[in-house]
Amino acid sequence: MPADLSTVLLIERHRGTLDKALDAVRTRAYWSPYPEHPKAYGDGEEGKAAFDALLGKRFDLDQPGTDGWTGDERSPYGTELGVQYPHPDPDVLLPAMREAMPAWRDAGPEARAMVCLEILARINARTHEFAHAVMHTSGQAFTMAFQAGGPHAQDRGLEAVAYAYVEQVRTPDTAEWTKPQGKRDPLSLRKSFTAVPRGIGLVIGCNTFPTWNGYPGLFASLATGNPVLVKPHPRAVLPLALTVAVAREVLAEAGFSPDLVCLAVERPGEGLAKTLAVRPEVRVIDYTGSTAFGDWLETHARQAQVYTEKAGVNSVVIDSTDDYRGMLNNLAFALSLYSGQMCTTPQNLLIPRDGIETEAGPRTYDEVTADLATAVEKLLGDDARANALLGALVNPDVKARLDGAAGIGEVALASRAVAHPDFPDAVVRTPALVKLDGAKPDDEAAYMSECFGPVAFAVAVDSTADALELLRRTIRDKGAMTVGGYTTSAEVERQMEEVCWDECAQLSLNLTGGVYVNQTAAFSDFHGSGGNPAANAALCDGAFVANRFRMVEVRRPV
Amino acid sequence: MPADLSTVLLIERHRGTLDKALDAVRTRAYWSPYPEHPKAYGDGEEGKAAFDALLGKRFDLDQPGTDGWTGDERSPYGTELGVQYPHPDPDVLLPAMREAMPAWRDAGPEARAMVCLEILARINARTHEFAHAVMHTSGQAFTMAFQAGGPHAQDRGLEAVAYAYVEQVRTPDTAEWTKPQGKRDPLSLRKSFTAVPRGIGLVIGCNTFPTWNGYPGLFASLATGNPVLVKPHPRAVLPLALTVAVAREVLAEAGFSPDLVCLAVERPGEGLAKTLAVRPEVRVIDYTGSTAFGDWLETHARQAQVYTEKAGVNSVVIDSTDDYRGMLNNLAFALSLYSGQMCTTPQNLLIPRDGIETEAGPRTYDEVTADLATAVEKLLGDDARANALLGALVNPDVKARLDGAAGIGEVALASRAVAHPDFPDAVVRTPALVKLDGAKPDDEAAYMSECFGPVAFAVAVDSTADALELLRRTIRDKGAMTVGGYTTSAEVERQMEEVCWDECAQLSLNLTGGVYVNQTAAFSDFHGSGGNPAANAALCDGAFVANRFRMVEVRRPV
Repeated sequence: MPADLSTVLLIERHRGTLDKALDAVRTRAYWSPYPEHPKAYGDGEEGKAAFDALLGKRFDLDQPGTDGWTGDERSPYGTELGVQYPHPDPDVLLPAMREAMPAWRDAGPEARAMVCLEILARINARTHEFAHAVMHTSGQAFTMAFQAGGPHAQDRGLEAVAYAYVEQVRTPDTAEWTKPQGKRDPLSLRKSFTAVPRGIGLVIGCNTFPTWNGYPGLFASLATGNPVLVKPHPRAVLPLALTVAVAREVLAEAGFSPDLVCLAVERPGEGLAKTLAVRPEVRVIDYTGSTAFGDWLETHARQAQVYTEKAGVNSVVIDSTDDYRGMLNNLAFALSLYSGQMCTTPQNLLIPRDGIETEAGPRTYDEVTADLATAVEKLLGDDARANALLGALVNPDVKARLDGAAGIGEVALASRAVAHPDFPDAVVRTPALVKLDGAKPDDEAAYMSECFGPVAFAVAVDSTADALELLRRTIRDKGAMTVGGYTTSAEVERQMEEVCWDECAQLSLNLTGGVYVNQTAAFSDFHGSGGNPAANAALCDGAFVANRFRMVEVRRPV
Repeated sequence: MPADLSTVLLIERHRGTLDKALDAVRTRAYWSPYPEHPKAYGDGEEGKAAFDALLGKRFDLDQPGTDGWTGDERSPYGTELGVQYPHPDPDVLLPAMREAMPAWRDAGPEARAMVCLEILARINARTHEFAHAVMHTSGQAFTMAFQAGGPHAQDRGLEAVAYAYVEQVRTPDTAEWTKPQGKRDPLSLRKSFTAVPRGIGLVIGCNTFPTWNGYPGLFASLATGNPVLVKPHPRAVLPLALTVAVAREVLAEAGFSPDLVCLAVERPGEGLAKTLAVRPEVRVIDYTGSTAFGDWLETHARQAQVYTEKAGVNSVVIDSTDDYRGMLNNLAFALSLYSGQMCTTPQNLLIPRDGIETEAGPRTYDEVTADLATAVEKLLGDDARANALLGALVNPDVKARLDGAAGIGEVALASRAVAHPDFPDAVVRTPALVKLDGAKPDDEAAYMSECFGPVAFAVAVDSTADALELLRRTIRDKGAMTVGGYTTSAEVERQMEEVCWDECAQLSLNLTGGVYVNQTAAFSDFHGSGGNPAANAALCDGAFVANRFRMVEVRRPV
């Protein structure tokens, strides 16, 4: 039976997009093929209806080795999703996935890239449906779920496909090699080079950004020829189940085994990720989540290439500014967005205890802290706006940490509960700002640990030099996904850069407008550095894709 | 003080060579800037004199943290080298090396590449001197020590520089990012991207190919901004000490700290590699040697990126041939070269017990084995030619294994001692060929282990299909740096390819002329695949360089 989706057709449809993506990662200029405005995708009623139709039902994927059904997702907005997913028997599923490998390998890098782009295009067309699924698993507000869970996640997936493609085709398919031998006949060989996959790629999803953090690894592994088994966070299955369903549909239409992409949902408390991670068939692992489990994977899954994004402690060094209001508003937004539940949200604001210089004169540490508290209050004063920005707390652990924050130090800004008009059971909270002293050992125990969620620390330091030393130590010992800095001094700016170059962290300087330290744009910004304890990989670069396949050479005499 | 070697001067001198190297790795066509004929480097008297002048003396490198002198190299050709090298105190040396990092990082990828090419050019100019150093540490015959230890090693170093350079410059130094915001002003950021090194690169050298196996890691790490500490095999220090001396000289002339490249020679039995490998300053490790220590490094040096080339079991599947004589001569040469002391030398010749088809009719297993023995005897019948091909056994372990080979199975070809006219103490031996039965468990224990040195096994198998299954199992369980195959059947050829694609091994088919399975050419052939247990990296590809540095982004509003 001929495939409905021929490679020729797919090339016609998607090659131009791939080329633009390749160009974008070279120039790092702004680009995206996926609009981020919901209105670009219609009124959304169809997507909402599609989402509603999934609830309370079995989500059948027709995968091999299904030995039962499982699932108990509850929306952070309060409703039970009631979706049941296939539970896998790895002894049946993994061999079936391996079975699918040779044909996918033989298809070559371009055909694989085209199939990946078709998957992304179909996901993109269903962005409204995905947005509801992301919203009701992560607790993100709708607009953020739509953008970060939709087009921005799709961007990151496409970016991974672009890197994977270019990495594979930098070696030609064939070469003629002729070595002169003086007066004798030259030596001549014909060589062929084949990108071969490592084995099954396991993607271990997270609760907060199932698609955004899941797509890079999924598409990088798939585009380099590896089957991909997606093991979602048990609280955030639906967005990745939808993803797997679309991938399987496209693969089948393109004439490949749908088992190249499968879903593995665990029973409550089963610890399925641990079981799968050490299976010999699994040769690549992508993980986003806690440092403890990331370290476990790196230690135990020795048969696999392991790419981890773990926890870090993000700092902002506040030395001086010529736009005090802009700085406060920018930081207030950064702390509030998705209730601080981003791996990139700033946690420690390092402020000299003698205060800072601003364009309107000096401000003391207490003034800066109070002014920032006011900026947050103002930003979130209106409940509708607060709900649109904050979303809901993703799980009870985050709420417990927030509740404990008041006991850590002097509270400069108390968290406030916000009522949600549509979802009375949603736990919506504004961020808390707690004052700590950088020199006190008790305080250090708090600010040198990740306090994931809507808690920020205003850490009083002796000087900017002291702040930079603390920044260096924090990145080196705890890792950082982001670093922010505010200064009007070229010298201090240079010192901030030096620390970030030395300790390998991504730095945003003097953000006072509509770009926030916790946001990165695919094709241009690197997410994480891969060089400090917060993550061993960056999204996305050559290192993220180059070791997902190997190049096998066959040479013969001409 | 201005540097004697300005970047402008170095670019003028070397940029063309770098561009040609970049082109060669893209086309994989034959290319080398370093001639392989000794006569291209003069009569060699100067190089021999320079080598002689090193013997029996201290090799001073003027490194920080030298706390004594050590060295007890004895040439496999029988003479004591008597060279004493600085012994390092890591607590002084490693901090000094780290101190040198920022200026080297700030120099950028192109300046670093140019300095590396100048180092290689100066090494190249001293190829005769290096050849004697390689010969009298590895036991290679002079011509091989000259070529493999000289231009071919330099080629691999240059190849690593080319890959490292292109990997770093695929992201631009700076970018302007402007995101439209509908009717509002666009968001605009200026971004800078800096390739930052990971930390100190440790190169752990091997006894047999100190430069060829050492240069890729050394130059890949150095070109990506990392200082490099070279820890040679205690029996093969001199070629790498010379390398370090040249690198330090060039770095100083170019205005950088010479401590970017240092030497660490251990006292007898000290186990210095273990100590250095787990130091926090060491963030990259390149290792060639035993599987046991390679596994130890991968398990324990968790703070570092570890690139290992370990042991494997290389097989040749003999199904059929249309050039029986050519096949036998080619295999005879492959088994004899450097007395089989190459990680790429074939060990197991898998031959159907019912025999094979040739252009001159069928040949039984016994006939093929006997004919191969005869081909080896003929190739090495003349002592002068034998010495030129075999070199000396590198150390007593190899001789012990060879002596034990007679007890493993029926000896089809006994090893013969060859007298060396110039070096009466050299241990020169022709290879042994031992017959084993693929179906006997006792024999399996022998042929499924690496027997490093001049011992090959003619393994009788039930059929070509049986051979392919054994090949698959051998690669999967034991690893392989090379696989050879002889067949006239397109179907069998395809099956051999399938096995090598599935199990990730480099395949040479039907070599009957002047190219041998154990030789690879830089810029065209991959050495190892990085995808089976013999090695976790290949020389050289994107994966070999991409994770030696990270990209740090600094972004600011425009």
